Amino acid sequence: MFEAIRDVGRNGDTGGYRRFVWNDADQRLREWFAGEAKRRGLDLHVDRNGNQWAWWGDPAAGDALVLGSHLDSVPEGGAFDGPLGVLSAYAALDAVRDQGLEPSRPVAVVNFVDEEGARFGIACAGSRLLTGSLDADAALALRDRDGDTMADVVRRAGRDPEGLGRDDEVLRCVGTFLELHVEQGRDLVERGRAIGVGSQIWPHGRYRFDFTGEANHAGTTAMADRRDPMLTYAATALAADEQARRDGARATFGRVEVTPNGTNAVPSQVRAWMDARAADEDTLLAVVDGVRRRAVESGARDRTEVTMSAESESPATVFDPGLAGRLSRRLEDAPVIPTGAGHDAGVLALHGVPTAMLFVRNPTGVSHSPAEYAETDDCLAGVDALAACVHELAGGQR
Amino acid sequence: MFEAIRDVGRNGDTGGYRRFVWNDADQRLREWFAGEAKRRGLDLHVDRNGNQWAWWGDPAAGDALVLGSHLDSVPEGGAFDGPLGVLSAYAALDAVRDQGLEPSRPVAVVNFVDEEGARFGIACAGSRLLTGSLDADAALALRDRDGDTMADVVRRAGRDPEGLGRDDEVLRCVGTFLELHVEQGRDLVERGRAIGVGSQIWPHGRYRFDFTGEANHAGTTAMADRRDPMLTYAATALAADEQARRDGARATFGRVEVTPNGTNAVPSQVRAWMDARAADEDTLLAVVDGVRRRAVESGARDRTEVTMSAESESPATVFDPGLAGRLSRRLEDAPVIPTGAGHDAGVLALHGVPTAMLFVRNPTGVSHSPAEYAETDDCLAGVDALAACVHELAGGQR
Repeated sequence: MFEAIRDVGRNGDTGGYRRFVWNDADQRLREWFAGEAKRRGLDLHVDRNGNQWAWWGDPAAGDALVLGSHLDSVPEGGAFDGPLGVLSAYAALDAVRDQGLEPSRPVAVVNFVDEEGARFGIACAGSRLLTGSLDADAALALRDRDGDTMADVVRRAGRDPEGLGRDDEVLRCVGTFLELHVEQGRDLVERGRAIGVGSQIWPHGRYRFDFTGEANHAGTTAMADRRDPMLTYAATALAADEQARRDGARATFGRVEVTPNGTNAVPSQVRAWMDARAADEDTLLAVVDGVRRRAVESGARDRTEVTMSAESESPATVFDPGLAGRLSRRLEDAPVIPTGAGHDAGVLALHGVPTAMLFVRNPTGVSHSPAEYAETDDCLAGVDALAACVHELAGGQR
Repeated sequence: MFEAIRDVGRNGDTGGYRRFVWNDADQRLREWFAGEAKRRGLDLHVDRNGNQWAWWGDPAAGDALVLGSHLDSVPEGGAFDGPLGVLSAYAALDAVRDQGLEPSRPVAVVNFVDEEGARFGIACAGSRLLTGSLDADAALALRDRDGDTMADVVRRAGRDPEGLGRDDEVLRCVGTFLELHVEQGRDLVERGRAIGVGSQIWPHGRYRFDFTGEANHAGTTAMADRRDPMLTYAATALAADEQARRDGARATFGRVEVTPNGTNAVPSQVRAWMDARAADEDTLLAVVDGVRRRAVESGARDRTEVTMSAESESPATVFDPGLAGRLSRRLEDAPVIPTGAGHDAGVLALHGVPTAMLFVRNPTGVSHSPAEYAETDDCLAGVDALAACVHELAGGQR
């Protein structure tokens, strides 16, 4: 199945994917999803928010077991983040049918729309709109880089923007959600295991730093006369790295905007975003406070002003511990491991849906990059694990 | 006169100017220049490269004394860099005429086109095209941020792109060039003098650094597994500052481009430009080599690759020492000081034209910013100094 979508939305030069919500690549992947449903005699349902559901059994019966993930990508993303979960769900369905399973509850495969948020900046938009944790009016007003609103884009895709928002009719059908995903670190590599079960998503925050100094001529302004915010930013980026290493956390400055961004100009302002995550909220707080303190100290030295504001802060999302334990036991005591990344599974878990995740080993730990990878044997082990979970959860032994 | 152009091309929000070659603001300033020439009965000549000349006397007589500067600005630039030199030239002309000077040689006021290079990235384009140090075909192919070539833009301004290039007919007229400019540092402040005479333009280089690591997920990738080029960049920016301070030079990272520049992505690449200048070429070389060495060392620590390439390197430009000494003596032993900035005066000096510069004190040293400033008294002292120089150089006592 991987072959059929390998080249959709792929940049020939870099091998990276550019599959953004409702763009051409995304539309072709949605057609592929619908085709796979049809080929298996599953009933395709597209909900008001654009999420695609392929039903085996009657959704109206309720308490369904739903498998799936997403098909969109970050800019220049890899082939596995998202699609592996959807492909594995279809493959696991094929396996349990071959094995003669008569499911005790409806089973579905889902493709959540716009998980990466690459176009409008809000991750897990499809599942968050569905559960109501993202306000529909706020979402519709978001603009992409071309200046088009989500409302424009949804309308152009032939869909009704008015339909966006919490959808209890759909949520009522979902009894358990199970998302398989390529691991985005090297925890399983270090444990020597192909498959893990998710315990929780780390608490996570995004913080915007504004470093403000004074624009000046790079050639004529004596070093001592400068108020250069680039220096404060640089010291802060290094401090974040040091602090995260010390506390066993993550802190990353991956986005920077410089004003005026000219070679011969001392900048007037550097704006930079820090992504920070840690195993618990106290550690996260300690990291963020430590970085802020170091930024302010550097600003005093550079005679620049520093402000920090949280753009988002998410608490830890703990997956249903009973469910995780049960699946781990079913999968030969697969390790139960946390993840630093957000997922649709986290959104559903926060909404109260019993939710679990399976991770497939990633030899390099690299993700959100064309180098993202999983061995074929490990992917097949993932399908087997998912099939075993379907037997466990829809096999009549509930 | 300042009043008439105060609001041309000015951003009402910031007070900064956006006067870029051949844009609406630039065209209005050109009309203003032409009007000032007409009002004084001077003959306006626009050369093939678009530079405007206002002649008092017959250019064909040769060996003219030319005063002037430019009217364009950097993005969000100040009111003085450029316009002060043109305004002061007209005002000095008025003064010497009032004083009854019968000039011994032709005198002109010039407005050099596109000095800042804000639109096409090449500074001093008007004077460099005139002298042939910038190739016309290369210039015509340059593109602005909208993707328009200089050829398109020149044509749209109603001018013939074929006319661009070295113009010996014009150069033959110019005997001496004298450019007055607001100081872009605080040398005159520290000396307690309103006016200085230029000695030289510091040697100058622009260097592009490519820091290459590995794109990865900011939430899931352990710090130890990263190859984050942002860290190498940050360490290099701090090293440049330290090195420049130690060597009494200037080194600035004012422009940065991050790929993919996402909050939740460890970057795959950071590209950054260093502007470096020093009083002599050996010092400049030592600074650049020192920064490169530190960048490579940081790259080894971060497991990133670092390459550096020189985008431009300009040797020191020494202004005619005899002329500078003569003007300094005439101006009550005005201090003879170097500048770190490039100017049309430097281009003409390199071409072999006897050239001098006058600097007007800048209380903060700030330039290329809306905060750029000179006291009115100092500006008037600049006009007086320029008028004295016209007496000195065109008063019959050559």
